[in-house]
Amino acid sequence: MHFLLKEIRHNPILWLLGFVPVVFATAALVPQAHRLLFVLAVLSTVPLAALLSHATESVAAKTGDAAGGLLNATLGNLTELIIALTALRAGEYMLVKASIAGAIVANTLFMLGASFLLGGLKYHVQEYNRGSARLQAGLLFVAAVALLIPSLLSDSDVAAGAQVTQTLSVCLAVVLMLVYGLGLVFSLQTHRELFAGAEHAAAPAAWPLRVALATLAGVTVLVALVSEIFVESVQAAAEGFGMTPAFVGFVIVALVGGAAEMASAFSGARKNRLDLSVGIALGSASQIALFVAPVLVLLSYVIGPTAMDLQLWPGAVVMILVATLTASLVTNSGRSAWFVGVLVLTVYMLLAITLYLLPPRVQGPGEDFERPLVRNS
Amino acid sequence: MHFLLKEIRHNPILWLLGFVPVVFATAALVPQAHRLLFVLAVLSTVPLAALLSHATESVAAKTGDAAGGLLNATLGNLTELIIALTALRAGEYMLVKASIAGAIVANTLFMLGASFLLGGLKYHVQEYNRGSARLQAGLLFVAAVALLIPSLLSDSDVAAGAQVTQTLSVCLAVVLMLVYGLGLVFSLQTHRELFAGAEHAAAPAAWPLRVALATLAGVTVLVALVSEIFVESVQAAAEGFGMTPAFVGFVIVALVGGAAEMASAFSGARKNRLDLSVGIALGSASQIALFVAPVLVLLSYVIGPTAMDLQLWPGAVVMILVATLTASLVTNSGRSAWFVGVLVLTVYMLLAITLYLLPPRVQGPGEDFERPLVRNS
Amino acid sequence: MHFLLKEIRHNPILWLLGFVPVVFATAALVPQAHRLLFVLAVLSTVPLAALLSHATESVAAKTGDAAGGLLNATLGNLTELIIALTALRAGEYMLVKASIAGAIVANTLFMLGASFLLGGLKYHVQEYNRGSARLQAGLLFVAAVALLIPSLLSDSDVAAGAQVTQTLSVCLAVVLMLVYGLGLVFSLQTHRELFAGAEHAAAPAAWPLRVALATLAGVTVLVALVSEIFVESVQAAAEGFGMTPAFVGFVIVALVGGAAEMASAFSGARKNRLDLSVGIALGSASQIALFVAPVLVLLSYVIGPTAMDLQLWPGAVVMILVATLTASLVTNSGRSAWFVGVLVLTVYMLLAITLYLLPPRVQGPGEDFERPLVRNS
Repeated sequence: MHFLLKEIRHNPILWLLGFVPVVFATAALVPQAHRLLFVLAVLSTVPLAALLSHATESVAAKTGDAAGGLLNATLGNLTELIIALTALRAGEYMLVKASIAGAIVANTLFMLGASFLLGGLKYHVQEYNRGSARLQAGLLFVAAVALLIPSLLSDSDVAAGAQVTQTLSVCLAVVLMLVYGLGLVFSLQTHRELFAGAEHAAAPAAWPLRVALATLAGVTVLVALVSEIFVESVQAAAEGFGMTPAFVGFVIVALVGGAAEMASAFSGARKNRLDLSVGIALGSASQIALFVAPVLVLLSYVIGPTAMDLQLWPGAVVMILVATLTASLVTNSGRSAWFVGVLVLTVYMLLAITLYLLPPRVQGPGEDFERPLVRNS
Repeated sequence: MHFLLKEIRHNPILWLLGFVPVVFATAALVPQAHRLLFVLAVLSTVPLAALLSHATESVAAKTGDAAGGLLNATLGNLTELIIALTALRAGEYMLVKASIAGAIVANTLFMLGASFLLGGLKYHVQEYNRGSARLQAGLLFVAAVALLIPSLLSDSDVAAGAQVTQTLSVCLAVVLMLVYGLGLVFSLQTHRELFAGAEHAAAPAAWPLRVALATLAGVTVLVALVSEIFVESVQAAAEGFGMTPAFVGFVIVALVGGAAEMASAFSGARKNRLDLSVGIALGSASQIALFVAPVLVLLSYVIGPTAMDLQLWPGAVVMILVATLTASLVTNSGRSAWFVGVLVLTVYMLLAITLYLLPPRVQGPGEDFERPLVRNS
Repeated sequence: MHFLLKEIRHNPILWLLGFVPVVFATAALVPQAHRLLFVLAVLSTVPLAALLSHATESVAAKTGDAAGGLLNATLGNLTELIIALTALRAGEYMLVKASIAGAIVANTLFMLGASFLLGGLKYHVQEYNRGSARLQAGLLFVAAVALLIPSLLSDSDVAAGAQVTQTLSVCLAVVLMLVYGLGLVFSLQTHRELFAGAEHAAAPAAWPLRVALATLAGVTVLVALVSEIFVESVQAAAEGFGMTPAFVGFVIVALVGGAAEMASAFSGARKNRLDLSVGIALGSASQIALFVAPVLVLLSYVIGPTAMDLQLWPGAVVMILVATLTASLVTNSGRSAWFVGVLVLTVYMLLAITLYLLPPRVQGPGEDFERPLVRNS
């Protein structure tokens, strides 16, 4: 507890922990106050995500390079995973898919662009390790292809079509997880010298292992409970605020779930350690695309009301393609200045504005997501 | 006048100025000779564009680096702007949009490719400043995303859809102009050392400020008057020649409006100053995409019969994407040889041939342009 | 014959030549055993393709650099050409198009990826000549644009549309062949010093000219005869195996036709001569796209029942675009390690799995291929 309190004193984000009891009390007393619950749940998730992130890093720091890297690679997006699992259990597949797509896009464009901008406002020109950025961009590209192809080829107008889409989604999920695993072998084992310096260099004052593990367990439970309130309130609250679930999942959930990582990435950029920022932003995006999303597809067989496929709505596929292409083009030179950040952030803003003004129409639960980018019949 | 006459003697393009009185006389005497008027208007626009371009550069040379850069950046495509404004006032939105899209594609592919080819026929391998090319390609990419997204997500089948598309177009226009402005701050102020040498190095024998300003004012009026004849005759003339307005706007107007800049770019390439050629070609394309097009959208509220949106027909969006991608791939190495020019010109030819043989079908004024790339309903 | 026998002793692939008489005997005795004939035809084509490839290289080695390069550039994909010609004469346009698209994708992704992987398993990091890879990627990009644009803009719902598509296909075919020819002038004549080392370095123990020419002639006839059996049996056999003709053409024919080149490319990679592997993979892909495909379109006027156009089904265009983009991104650095091979192979597997599970629906002969990517009506 001493470490936690010390951490809270030093990290203003953690002051938001005060909202955690408030959200539980409110949920018990006025369960119909959807908009209030939504705001409180968002405010509580941010500090919990920061704690989770710090606890994961502390455990990773104690367990040595390879195991630590593996741990970070599986628990690094625990907040997003818990929120998505809660939505999955509730059968809110649109929210799950929107939050996956949104997290990929937000990490690739918003986190990367803001890091470039914040770093560039302090340093004239910044350099970073291109090799690591290229690996992550390559993984993202493979994931984008995996998401693009079923949207393009699927044959949705017959019942048999849904079955085929489902089989395809499971195959793609397994392939993506295999590639993700091989990518870890590559970057943590066989060619780790190429990625030196880009990993972990930030972990500020690691906690003792016991504290870290206890925090990991306790906060995971808290995030799961808050997520339940969040998922229950989001639909009604979004309508109240005039937003669609797609916009909420794509923008709000993605930014909330990634708040802790963003804080680390931005702080790295301000310390002229852009390797770290680029690694967190693109690494987190590729982890969600190649690990979190496949896990959710496979888990939907166990905990969801029906199986979930990997098909996104056409606009989301295009956004992920645009984000991947932007990351590839921008990280090609290994140098950055403030205007590079402006360009990347602008691409994100263009997508967010469009999604806010022109949300995809949804007739029934998930119905709109079954439509392929190009009909094939 | 002395300077003008001297200039005319040295620059064979200016001999075409003789057509300017002819076009006015013809318009007054035989206003129904659409095909003749079209050809005369085209022939008159080329030398006037060259004069405008020279006058702008002369004023820019007198006013110092930053202000001169700013002037060039706003008046550099004055000819295209005037023609588009005339078409806008006449409510010819299809011509406006086709000429914007066509100018972006022609500058990115035709001007760049022909510069590479002409330079490469004289020099074995040419090198140029990649930094500047990357900035312009980045700006073009952002503009391409801004044009792609509304085409993809829009929801056109209800009246409300048009309203939303309009709001979106205004938002995107404002964002693009902001990015363009920040790009000027970046390249003219904070990081200008990265772009040294790529700018202005060409201005041949600048005119005195008084002469330049008077030329700027007088020729602008002449171009506006010729444009009026051009816009009135183009529709009937295109039919007479068996071309659609889309082809005329996309290919003919784009090449005519950019004739003066092309002359400068090609002459730079022949003098082994490829920095200059690449800067003119990509700079001009990004200026049209991020400054001229947004200005036209905003001005359509003031001078057009109805508001104009940013939605292009699907083929045009794909062409702009292809052009942007080509520019990114080709300028990546900072080196060129004649065959690089052949490749880039071939991409332009493929697009032009396709557009000539398979023009987009247009049922009514602007109707075809409202259709999104992928229906979202 | 002595040379042939010696070759057969040293090259285990050639033992498969034993299947050649078997396939002819089976075709004569049990012409209805489609599945057996299909398997035998595949097994016979592999060694014949290897012989053709060796004979071409031997002739090329004797005739000097420029003429040899030209010969390789025209006969290098003779197996694919013969199979496609047989299918063309039989009016199996879907098979022709699928095998063209499949060969481009298989060479760009499977051959390149497997070379990177096999080389990377033996050497930690491998380097190769980027210039050559860039030229081939540029040619592929131009071909991809040529295939994309008609699919996108075409107007298929009227009879006139088919006529226009046909004219467009002939124009595009001529342009592509011109660019291919200019590319040969560039790489074999004006700038050959940039491509030194990437070409031909492999030819193992060239045959005397007489033997090579006789082999070339004799084996061509055999391949043509086997192709006839193959094309006749493929449709029924594919149904028997539960595969569509599109899958067979795209995956099976492409891998069979390219078996000989793959053997050379993989052996180059294992000898740390990645220049050779990349040159074979991308050179072969661009040759099929810019030479074999146009030749087939033009020859369809002479030998086909009706003219064939260049329009592919939407999924094939996307696959070619994905393959081209992958090649551009991956060869950008000029370095490789085993995981790069995994990434490229994964993209191929994603496409193959999708095509296997979700084959394009075909109502009638070629009907499905006439549909454009985006309707324009």
